Amino acid sequence: MEYKFSKSVEALSSSAVREILKLTQGNQVLSLAGGLPAEDSFPIAEMREAFVRSFDLGAKALQYGLTDGYLPLREWVASRMKQKHMNVGVDNMLLTTGSQQAVDLLCQVYLDEGDVVLVENPTYLAAVQLFQFRGIRAIPVDGDEEGMDLEDLARKIAQYRPKMAYVIPTFANPTGKVWSLERRLGLLRQCKENDILILEDDPYGEIQFDGQEPYRSIFSLDEHPEDSCVVYTSTFSKIVAPGLRTGWAIGDKRVIQMMVKAKQAVDLQSSTIDQIALHQLLDNFDLESHIEKIRASYKARMEWMNELMLAQNWNGVKWEKPRGGMFLWVTLPEHIDSEKLLAASVKEGVAFVPGKPFYAAEAQSNTMRLNYTLLDRDDTQMAISRLSAALEKYNQSQAVQQ
Amino acid sequence: MEYKFSKSVEALSSSAVREILKLTQGNQVLSLAGGLPAEDSFPIAEMREAFVRSFDLGAKALQYGLTDGYLPLREWVASRMKQKHMNVGVDNMLLTTGSQQAVDLLCQVYLDEGDVVLVENPTYLAAVQLFQFRGIRAIPVDGDEEGMDLEDLARKIAQYRPKMAYVIPTFANPTGKVWSLERRLGLLRQCKENDILILEDDPYGEIQFDGQEPYRSIFSLDEHPEDSCVVYTSTFSKIVAPGLRTGWAIGDKRVIQMMVKAKQAVDLQSSTIDQIALHQLLDNFDLESHIEKIRASYKARMEWMNELMLAQNWNGVKWEKPRGGMFLWVTLPEHIDSEKLLAASVKEGVAFVPGKPFYAAEAQSNTMRLNYTLLDRDDTQMAISRLSAALEKYNQSQAVQQ
Repeated sequence: MEYKFSKSVEALSSSAVREILKLTQGNQVLSLAGGLPAEDSFPIAEMREAFVRSFDLGAKALQYGLTDGYLPLREWVASRMKQKHMNVGVDNMLLTTGSQQAVDLLCQVYLDEGDVVLVENPTYLAAVQLFQFRGIRAIPVDGDEEGMDLEDLARKIAQYRPKMAYVIPTFANPTGKVWSLERRLGLLRQCKENDILILEDDPYGEIQFDGQEPYRSIFSLDEHPEDSCVVYTSTFSKIVAPGLRTGWAIGDKRVIQMMVKAKQAVDLQSSTIDQIALHQLLDNFDLESHIEKIRASYKARMEWMNELMLAQNWNGVKWEKPRGGMFLWVTLPEHIDSEKLLAASVKEGVAFVPGKPFYAAEAQSNTMRLNYTLLDRDDTQMAISRLSAALEKYNQSQAVQQ
Repeated sequence: MEYKFSKSVEALSSSAVREILKLTQGNQVLSLAGGLPAEDSFPIAEMREAFVRSFDLGAKALQYGLTDGYLPLREWVASRMKQKHMNVGVDNMLLTTGSQQAVDLLCQVYLDEGDVVLVENPTYLAAVQLFQFRGIRAIPVDGDEEGMDLEDLARKIAQYRPKMAYVIPTFANPTGKVWSLERRLGLLRQCKENDILILEDDPYGEIQFDGQEPYRSIFSLDEHPEDSCVVYTSTFSKIVAPGLRTGWAIGDKRVIQMMVKAKQAVDLQSSTIDQIALHQLLDNFDLESHIEKIRASYKARMEWMNELMLAQNWNGVKWEKPRGGMFLWVTLPEHIDSEKLLAASVKEGVAFVPGKPFYAAEAQSNTMRLNYTLLDRDDTQMAISRLSAALEKYNQSQAVQQ
């Protein structure tokens, strides 16, 4: 049998990074690579009780459910969104298999092959891969610490006539960046003027370190929910646990209903029991205190990693301390190719994600993303030491080559 | 904001049937429409215990897992497949969000817009919708009680150069049909000769009524797993419970690995905890006895519905008693349009699915699918009486019009 795959699979070909990261599974490599939450943050006992209570609902807990998701959980999410200035009803919402599926469903119902999406530079690697898989052109817009550069945005809109902009304005992946209010409003204004849909991806918004007022979502700044030019997506992965694979999208009813129909075609619905159990948990749980604990824990981990890195006195290595989220974005000296550094690092017993796959177009190959949420203090210390050793060996080997 | 959806959403436009069936939700309409398992067949207490035990694994139960699925559950499925003459390893397998997702993922990695898939006539309506959504041409092949007509198959292969054939050879949806061994081998031979991939969808194979040897899957009749021209998919929805949304696909490693990569792009992975809980259940559960009970229960329900229908002495209404599965496929007198009959039936308090959406091309509008697994004896009796009343009124209104 000679298999003849679809054209889209070309975009799925294995990456060098993925192959290296596979080597790290199940052995002694310490991983700063993934975006995994700290396991001691999971409410295990409460979640077990929530599952037990879910079965009190009887057979419904194991039966087919609605494609758009378990109604009481949608009601809970709607009420939480309202606290964050997003006034949505259950008909403006779809529950998905993680927010990744929300991003994909919107792509499927809104974009055709060859359509253009504007993205940050760099941006979330799985979104870049998804756009490639769907034959969508991702065009990067320049940016700085405040968010997208509004002048470059205007240029790219004029040049590429995009249908969508994909942004992570709060504690971005991979950069940890927070957009200023001015940039949020600027993106919104330009997109409204040009009928460009904004996909606002907000998995990390709750993980804010400074104890200040939360940043306003772009969705909340637009007229909404009907006629909004923003579809907003978030997830329980970072504030409860990722293994339940439950995210949501909110937006105009017409857009959401189209996503529901697409979801019916691709998998009918996400897990009934997980949605019920999540609702059971949230109905009997002090989520605010729980999130407060996660924030404190992640802030401490970030500070610890930052301290360890400063202590290394690495030559020409730069990073900004993030104000929230799960990642440190590092710029290495220009002569360092972080994919080669990864290979050297894995030999030393530590892994990270090189910056290249986060770029939709030309990549800065001297960048890397470090996750600080998964490892404990001792393992983080060990990981940074190993990274240091790898850097030293990399520099030595470069010196020898020259 | 003027929304500009993708071209593919045209195929998602609301169907008249879906609108009518929506009316049946939450009120007194008895539904013979869905494909819902009997709720008294769910192992609720055992499943609750399985979830409790899953949490003994600690945080891993709630963490991200592998895209291809929880390894011990894949091992369990591989071992079960071996009992059914399908010798596969864990690398030949992907766990999915129901088998619907397996069908979609294979479409995405194997078919481009405009490619042709051969299907039974009629065939599973959600597959027809999915093919439409993906711009894939579904071409029906004639068939009879033994399966696809092999001469028409040869003609259609020559005429349309299909890349794939989608079949449900055992207790098909909607017809309940079982393919003969000769037809299975005939399809396999012609597909092998022409490099056509067979997608064998087998959600109902375990629900066999006659106590005989199970029918051989087409996958098991081909060389396998490597170089097989068959990808086989099945699900826990019908033998454990659908709310866990866990299905699987098996096939050649290269095909499966491509599906894994596509799954990584669309939703990263299905629920970790549901897969662990299923494994916990199956490891401590007499699945054979459980399936035996489901078979006996569904057979009794099917016989009861058959008996009730015979007692109505409907004029010109025909059906075959299925040998397994969940559906009775009914042919009405030619003058009856089953979509109009559905509207009349809902007024009487009973719903079914009209035959039309099960046809990829020209539909026989005097057909309908009745599900016999969801309702209990009394409700089934009531439902058939109401259907009878609807038929009578329909005939009267037709007589008046003439």
